Amino acid sequence: MDKILRIDVGAEGGPKAVVTPLGEYEGMGGRGMTSMVVFKEVPADCHPLGPENKIVIAPGMLTGSAASTSGRISVGCKSPLTGGIKEANAGGQAGQTLARLGYAAIILEGAAPANACYKVLINKDGVQISDATEYKGLLNYDLIEKIKPVYGEKVAVMSIGPAGEMKMAAATIAVTDREMRPSRHAGRGGVGAVMGTKGIKAIIIDDAGTKMRQPKNPEKFKAANKTFTQGLRSHAVTGEGLPAYGTNVLTNVINEAGAYPTYNFKQGQYKDAGKISGETIADLETKRGGNPTHGCHVGCAIRCSGIFVDKDGNYVTKQPEYETVWAHGGNCGICDPDAIARLDFLDDNIGLDTIEMGATIGVAMEAGLLNFGDAEGAIKLVGEVGQGTPLGRILGGGCALTAKAFGIERAPVVKGQAMPAYDPRAVKGIGVTYATTPMGADHTAGYAIATNILKVGGDVDPLSTEGQIELSRNLQIATAALDATGYCLFIAFAILDQEETFNAMVETINGMYDLSLTGDDVVALGKKILSMEREFNKKAGFTKEHDRLPRYMSREAIAPHNVTFDISDDQLDTLYNW
Amino acid sequence: MDKILRIDVGAEGGPKAVVTPLGEYEGMGGRGMTSMVVFKEVPADCHPLGPENKIVIAPGMLTGSAASTSGRISVGCKSPLTGGIKEANAGGQAGQTLARLGYAAIILEGAAPANACYKVLINKDGVQISDATEYKGLLNYDLIEKIKPVYGEKVAVMSIGPAGEMKMAAATIAVTDREMRPSRHAGRGGVGAVMGTKGIKAIIIDDAGTKMRQPKNPEKFKAANKTFTQGLRSHAVTGEGLPAYGTNVLTNVINEAGAYPTYNFKQGQYKDAGKISGETIADLETKRGGNPTHGCHVGCAIRCSGIFVDKDGNYVTKQPEYETVWAHGGNCGICDPDAIARLDFLDDNIGLDTIEMGATIGVAMEAGLLNFGDAEGAIKLVGEVGQGTPLGRILGGGCALTAKAFGIERAPVVKGQAMPAYDPRAVKGIGVTYATTPMGADHTAGYAIATNILKVGGDVDPLSTEGQIELSRNLQIATAALDATGYCLFIAFAILDQEETFNAMVETINGMYDLSLTGDDVVALGKKILSMEREFNKKAGFTKEHDRLPRYMSREAIAPHNVTFDISDDQLDTLYNW
Repeated sequence: MDKILRIDVGAEGGPKAVVTPLGEYEGMGGRGMTSMVVFKEVPADCHPLGPENKIVIAPGMLTGSAASTSGRISVGCKSPLTGGIKEANAGGQAGQTLARLGYAAIILEGAAPANACYKVLINKDGVQISDATEYKGLLNYDLIEKIKPVYGEKVAVMSIGPAGEMKMAAATIAVTDREMRPSRHAGRGGVGAVMGTKGIKAIIIDDAGTKMRQPKNPEKFKAANKTFTQGLRSHAVTGEGLPAYGTNVLTNVINEAGAYPTYNFKQGQYKDAGKISGETIADLETKRGGNPTHGCHVGCAIRCSGIFVDKDGNYVTKQPEYETVWAHGGNCGICDPDAIARLDFLDDNIGLDTIEMGATIGVAMEAGLLNFGDAEGAIKLVGEVGQGTPLGRILGGGCALTAKAFGIERAPVVKGQAMPAYDPRAVKGIGVTYATTPMGADHTAGYAIATNILKVGGDVDPLSTEGQIELSRNLQIATAALDATGYCLFIAFAILDQEETFNAMVETINGMYDLSLTGDDVVALGKKILSMEREFNKKAGFTKEHDRLPRYMSREAIAPHNVTFDISDDQLDTLYNW
Repeated sequence: MDKILRIDVGAEGGPKAVVTPLGEYEGMGGRGMTSMVVFKEVPADCHPLGPENKIVIAPGMLTGSAASTSGRISVGCKSPLTGGIKEANAGGQAGQTLARLGYAAIILEGAAPANACYKVLINKDGVQISDATEYKGLLNYDLIEKIKPVYGEKVAVMSIGPAGEMKMAAATIAVTDREMRPSRHAGRGGVGAVMGTKGIKAIIIDDAGTKMRQPKNPEKFKAANKTFTQGLRSHAVTGEGLPAYGTNVLTNVINEAGAYPTYNFKQGQYKDAGKISGETIADLETKRGGNPTHGCHVGCAIRCSGIFVDKDGNYVTKQPEYETVWAHGGNCGICDPDAIARLDFLDDNIGLDTIEMGATIGVAMEAGLLNFGDAEGAIKLVGEVGQGTPLGRILGGGCALTAKAFGIERAPVVKGQAMPAYDPRAVKGIGVTYATTPMGADHTAGYAIATNILKVGGDVDPLSTEGQIELSRNLQIATAALDATGYCLFIAFAILDQEETFNAMVETINGMYDLSLTGDDVVALGKKILSMEREFNKKAGFTKEHDRLPRYMSREAIAPHNVTFDISDDQLDTLYNW
């Protein structure tokens, strides 16, 4: 990872690739890399769909090495959804293959010609950019089927579906998994739309002939990685809950906590949660011949992904994540696992963020377009997004745009991005994260659920206003650093609870780069990343007034706890005091 | 004007009207009243469509008196279009009738029951609020026909069309003119949507049995008013150009100046401008038996409005204003006066801002939904807005929302509001106003065209970066004060050029209220109003980063002058230094 690939899509005579040394970006990876490049190179006041914006794609610091569960890849840009900085990361195979080829980042920049459609091939021989008109308008799964005969079945692909081509603010960048399914997504904030503006339909990464990245201090690295992996396997969440049921193990947990947003955030418990829980769906998958325990990339020690099949055993989609099951399930009053799986597949195929789409359909239901619980209606709506009908254009623009178009106040958004599957009134720590992260409402930016509900890394009462700021602050700092490493966020359960696992994680970095970092250095890295992100947003016009939940959440109490969001504005404004 | 009417639409048992003394709002009128009430009573962080927002309706300080051309009425709220404070004022009969009844303001507040539809009758006997389900969904002209048999043909009506009921961000509040046509509109910023959230379809104002407001110093007032009126009649713009051709006298002028935004702000001159100029349309009206010289309210000395008729002499719509002719004309490549008149009528009938809709259709044309010049296509699109189809929901949400839905960068908006009929690259003074006024892009907030192009009140080269800040600053201050008086903005041509007319205008206020205000006091009032508006916006999350034109206007030069917008950010940030 000693080079950066820059592609100027607007160069005279067609897109031009230049490979440069790392320069000032030396040592950065993942979110650290994407946020630093966006901070330094993208004018904060640019239009997200304009030529000044860039797409930055970066494997983590350890990605491509033998470090366990370290295959994440980050995508950064100015977000068309929020208008602020964005980092969305994904699993799948792209991170490791790109890292093995030596690229610390791909930067797509410039103004693409109108209607351009290119593909980029990156392999050990270099970079080729060529016309891909034949891929135009293809759904992600169909695109992969076109790629396989030409480039083989061992390449990794990052692609946009029709949503990204149509520059919709809910558009994702898909990343293929171990079976070359476009099922892992850099989902949030409309990163796919920005890739769409660059005219790049697919990036095909072929690491044939390359080797795993080698640590500078192999002994230290190997020992640390062993301890680290054992730590992951021994923790209840990473070693048992996630492998057995995937992230959807949370449905019952969050529902019991009264923090499961139901019917567009109208109540905190869903009567039919049990019908779509992780336990129910894993059982269904097993019975039908699917697979509830699967790794989204090679080298994962947790293996929380899975394969959802229909009653005849045919592949439908990846095992839907908890947030997807919630978004299209409880939030829309839908309790049919097969309908939710179809929605997950549609989202992946069109290239749409499942969280944004579920929240959007919830708002459409509130607006009276269809009834809560209408699964076929929801499937039809997502289909309209793929077709780019006028209604599809509204929905594909996300939750905030849909609410504005239909004159609805109750849009569960912060900075224009839809809230995920945890009601901030009943889990106040996550509410602090939603409000204050530079990303817009995002659970992964500081997953207070861990401590508020799962009692990992301590115990902070989810209903109290006490301790939530500090909790969210510490988690946001740690997460920013973790997102730079390439490690999956889910290792956090183990490293928060087990000091020796945390230390081993730090030692894998030290072994890889021959450094002597301590926990304090990890904290410093997290603060550095967050500070750049926040400074970018400030230059883009964000103030503390944007670090707020929608006002209705302070007005409307949510059952069963009958609580509003009552962390004061003054408290929220202390989050970045460090 | 010694009382305020407050209507709590969410009161127990149905809407409740309370009449209160003026209290701290004593002496305020028009925009001064609306902005002060919004500043003091509306939480800046509320959702514009939520129960915390209010609609404030206020005649000007002189409205309802014998003062010439003083019949404006202001509407204020937090804007659903911009998210900031909004004042939109209109002509028509509502201002004078409300003022004669003694009301300095109507404030609509609270949370209306779902699907509420009320009418409010205000007359000398008091206030009645009653169910108006029979009016639900009516177009503005149809509504007036239902009102006439019940309330007579001498009442004034303020109403919302289907757009306001659907809570669209481009929705207006219509005000009836002298012939009880709903043709004058508080147009900008979606004030109609906020009235929609309050469940008020129509306010019927019957001033039968009331008298003209009497000045406290009748001699001073009468003498000043005479001088003032003579000043209006003797100035070339207010005494000749506007009466003869209406505001559309500007088409040829702005086109010749190379500042006529054509094809969604792609060039500064329109080859067919002559076909839709004020001269052409006035001539057509006269030939067909319409009327190019008409006052929108009793007591106007300028009479710039008019009546547009079809070839058989039947009423089609009011004489379309310059900005309407531009928005639906040159901006969309449409040069058929009859098509533009139909679009004007549709907008008025549905209750839509003609500027916002024209700019929106320009963006839809850029997005490829229809071709530039497709008049029938444009008429169909506005029809969809009235029907609330999904496409109509997009367009009714305004220019910025439409651009976002279709993934278009080139949206000519500031703070989410569409720019009017003057390209800021070729008339830089108006660009400064667009960027910096708290209202979002709004020519009326500081009409630099006067001095940049018409050479009224001085001469500042429209293409130079010099002097534009000072010009816009002074005009914004003067306009804020003027919008408080109830005087029509068009008196500005005469008072900027003729010192004795300005002095007489100030003396009419002094005569009315028995005061001794000077020009400095007028400036102080303007600054006070602007300061409140800006402070509201700051609390709503606006920063200097929002005081910017879209970036593409600094990148794309516009013909024929081949100029970009090159007033620096630092210069813009000095506007409020006073």
